[in-house]
Amino acid sequence: MDKIISLCKRRGFIFPGSEIYGGMANSWDYGPLGVELKNNIKQAWWKQFVRQRSDIVGIDAALIMNPKVWLASGHLQNFSDPLVECKKCHERFRADTIGNQVPNGYLVPNPNSKNKKGKCPKCKGELTEARQFNMMFKTFVGPAEDAANMAYFRPETAQSMFVDFKNVLETTRKKIPFGIAQIGKAFRNEITPGNFIFRTREFEQMEIEYFIREKDWKKQFESWLAEMYKWMDFLGISKKHLHNLEVPKGELAHYSKRTVDIEYDFPFGKKELYGIAYRTDFDLSNHEKASGADLKYTDNETNEKFIPHVIEPTFGVDRSVLAVLCEAYTEEKIIPPSFAKGGGAVGDIKDDIRIVLKLPKAIAPIQVAILPLSKKPELSKPAFELYKELLADFACEYDETQSIGKRYRRQDEIGTPYCVTFDFESLEDKAVTVRDRDTMKQDRIKIGELKEYLKEKLVG
Amino acid sequence: MDKIISLCKRRGFIFPGSEIYGGMANSWDYGPLGVELKNNIKQAWWKQFVRQRSDIVGIDAALIMNPKVWLASGHLQNFSDPLVECKKCHERFRADTIGNQVPNGYLVPNPNSKNKKGKCPKCKGELTEARQFNMMFKTFVGPAEDAANMAYFRPETAQSMFVDFKNVLETTRKKIPFGIAQIGKAFRNEITPGNFIFRTREFEQMEIEYFIREKDWKKQFESWLAEMYKWMDFLGISKKHLHNLEVPKGELAHYSKRTVDIEYDFPFGKKELYGIAYRTDFDLSNHEKASGADLKYTDNETNEKFIPHVIEPTFGVDRSVLAVLCEAYTEEKIIPPSFAKGGGAVGDIKDDIRIVLKLPKAIAPIQVAILPLSKKPELSKPAFELYKELLADFACEYDETQSIGKRYRRQDEIGTPYCVTFDFESLEDKAVTVRDRDTMKQDRIKIGELKEYLKEKLVG
Repeated sequence: MDKIISLCKRRGFIFPGSEIYGGMANSWDYGPLGVELKNNIKQAWWKQFVRQRSDIVGIDAALIMNPKVWLASGHLQNFSDPLVECKKCHERFRADTIGNQVPNGYLVPNPNSKNKKGKCPKCKGELTEARQFNMMFKTFVGPAEDAANMAYFRPETAQSMFVDFKNVLETTRKKIPFGIAQIGKAFRNEITPGNFIFRTREFEQMEIEYFIREKDWKKQFESWLAEMYKWMDFLGISKKHLHNLEVPKGELAHYSKRTVDIEYDFPFGKKELYGIAYRTDFDLSNHEKASGADLKYTDNETNEKFIPHVIEPTFGVDRSVLAVLCEAYTEEKIIPPSFAKGGGAVGDIKDDIRIVLKLPKAIAPIQVAILPLSKKPELSKPAFELYKELLADFACEYDETQSIGKRYRRQDEIGTPYCVTFDFESLEDKAVTVRDRDTMKQDRIKIGELKEYLKEKLVG
Repeated sequence: MDKIISLCKRRGFIFPGSEIYGGMANSWDYGPLGVELKNNIKQAWWKQFVRQRSDIVGIDAALIMNPKVWLASGHLQNFSDPLVECKKCHERFRADTIGNQVPNGYLVPNPNSKNKKGKCPKCKGELTEARQFNMMFKTFVGPAEDAANMAYFRPETAQSMFVDFKNVLETTRKKIPFGIAQIGKAFRNEITPGNFIFRTREFEQMEIEYFIREKDWKKQFESWLAEMYKWMDFLGISKKHLHNLEVPKGELAHYSKRTVDIEYDFPFGKKELYGIAYRTDFDLSNHEKASGADLKYTDNETNEKFIPHVIEPTFGVDRSVLAVLCEAYTEEKIIPPSFAKGGGAVGDIKDDIRIVLKLPKAIAPIQVAILPLSKKPELSKPAFELYKELLADFACEYDETQSIGKRYRRQDEIGTPYCVTFDFESLEDKAVTVRDRDTMKQDRIKIGELKEYLKEKLVG
């Protein structure tokens, strides 16, 4: 894990947030490569689950919603961590991290849990009994800081799909089964975040609420689980690192009849990557009761009127990035094929440890690197021209510093699928060398055919 | 304006936020069409200003930063509205909306302003003197609600580019001039938001901090202003609706030596759409002083070390959407060309008011609508097949309800550039009718050539 964090910082994928000010607990900023990787993942997800499907539409809702939403959803009452406070130094701690364990973890807190044996980890003082601490970030909207102006930053994207359900249904006239998708930020004032971008206080979700008839829930659940595996396959995540955790009946959230956590073998252990839940008609029913709005669906053919049931596949954006990085990170000690043949292609170093990010080509932050063999203007000028030409179609980087071998390794480290080397011969034969990241094989390609060659390789 | 708001709600561009709960002051949710339009604008901006340029890289930073950032930037001290409070009913109001005007508006508040004559607009009670009210949304990070845990949701994206400057510089090794770009949310607890999505408490910015040598600032300012006009041209915004407001010296923000507001003729008046500011080296200098980090740039050739100066072009995302909608909204009373020729093409209604969103093709939420002439399975089945095929390459919608004329108008209203009609003849001649949104001209195109035809028209 340290290797991945170090690579992320060194190459500009992910920096500690506010680092020059000593950071900010568990806050991370996406740097130039990280933002491209993250955007590529988000855009691919949107393409696969929204634009290329006829049964799903998107929304992008406000982060601060009417507080009544969180009363209806149960978040104001139940979305809490059990905390104990030190009677001496007044520091607070999560009850389940000290003394006796809270049975259901922090997702379904147990108000009866008591911390009988624990002492304050800081000053050894006596601790209070566990009290519920709501994990929503609260703020005040408007000039007065009073209860009437209190509002919360959403702790999940899901509720906006339910609250906007009626508006979406009326404007799109979609027929069941159909879904509403959203990509956006959510906020949880977690007491113990950690593991790099795995658990942070602000995070991004890609989520679908898929509206169905109750009788279809088992079939739809299975079909969505399969869709999620197709997506993970697209991300290059090997099935052997994925595990379905069937959440036991006693530990299910209050709204769910079945939940599967899809766990991934992160370097710090097997942890939840994605989740899928059958939320029944819990949310729409509650919002109908609380708001008074009619949230029923009418079947135009049978005139049946009912509140749809919901299958919810949830994908964490930051966890997607982290799993993709973990899966792609490779250290190889190999002899490049060019050496095996006795030749030794220019730039590839023999018998060395090579760090490669084997990212799927479709989501690599840089697709093509253009590298003049030397800094001399006779090479760098036409190479830069070529770079500018390729920029129109591909995510490109131009690099002319240091030896070609070191530049190859730099591109390997950030997962660039193709390096294009412009050498002295290029001036004569109007061709360049294209090196493949994974095989390290080099092809000589005519410059006039380069775009087509790369399109073929990258887009397919 | 009402017509645009009504169209947005009716067709699913933009809904009032939390509407079923009576809404939430000035909160708006992007619906299925709105989110596509907004994403298309954001992605086009990123492509034009980041991916296709060699001198700009992106980041995506956390919304909650270390509070020291806001001390160094001056937001904790200066980012405030002068408010008066009613001594009787305790309601608060912006001082400049009652009685005497605060000279510099709410951006550079005047702590000496007094509200001498005003009475409470609600109960006519006496008002207090104006006091400064900070417009940042504050919250608490961690379990204790005390000063040590207080944090703020960023009021602008700009500061993260300065705070991450060193990390970006070190990992990308960019040479001056270069820029850092970001698209993301910002939050301002405005007392008087309004005008639909023009001024909301949470909003999205697209922003560039462009780092330069001090001596180049005038040239760079002009060149960036020109770049901004190129972008507005891409959005289809007519130059005759745009006005440069040179912010007078006395009203400049404390960090700026020159600021130009680009104003657009919105239906509710001439208001700021975008802005460009020369921020000098104010921000990096302050962050260097406050953090102790070395934020200087070293010129490798001359060994010169200096703090770069900054040109900042800022683009509001929501205002972009609003201006694009205002500019595209058209009501036409015309005779379709087919009628002029005496024929009358199927589906176009004569002598009627036609509402058309003349959106640029590149950002239209739906690019192609596929419409079977009748619901009969012999047409709807192959038409739906065609739709599914086109989905891979274009943003498509399939619609088989109501008359073809009404469906054309529906697509006109949401700005769909091309309608593809599958009729009974299509079964024989393997061709479809493609109708152009703006000219209403209809072409008969072989199905086998349809993809190429549309690609040519839409991508060019």
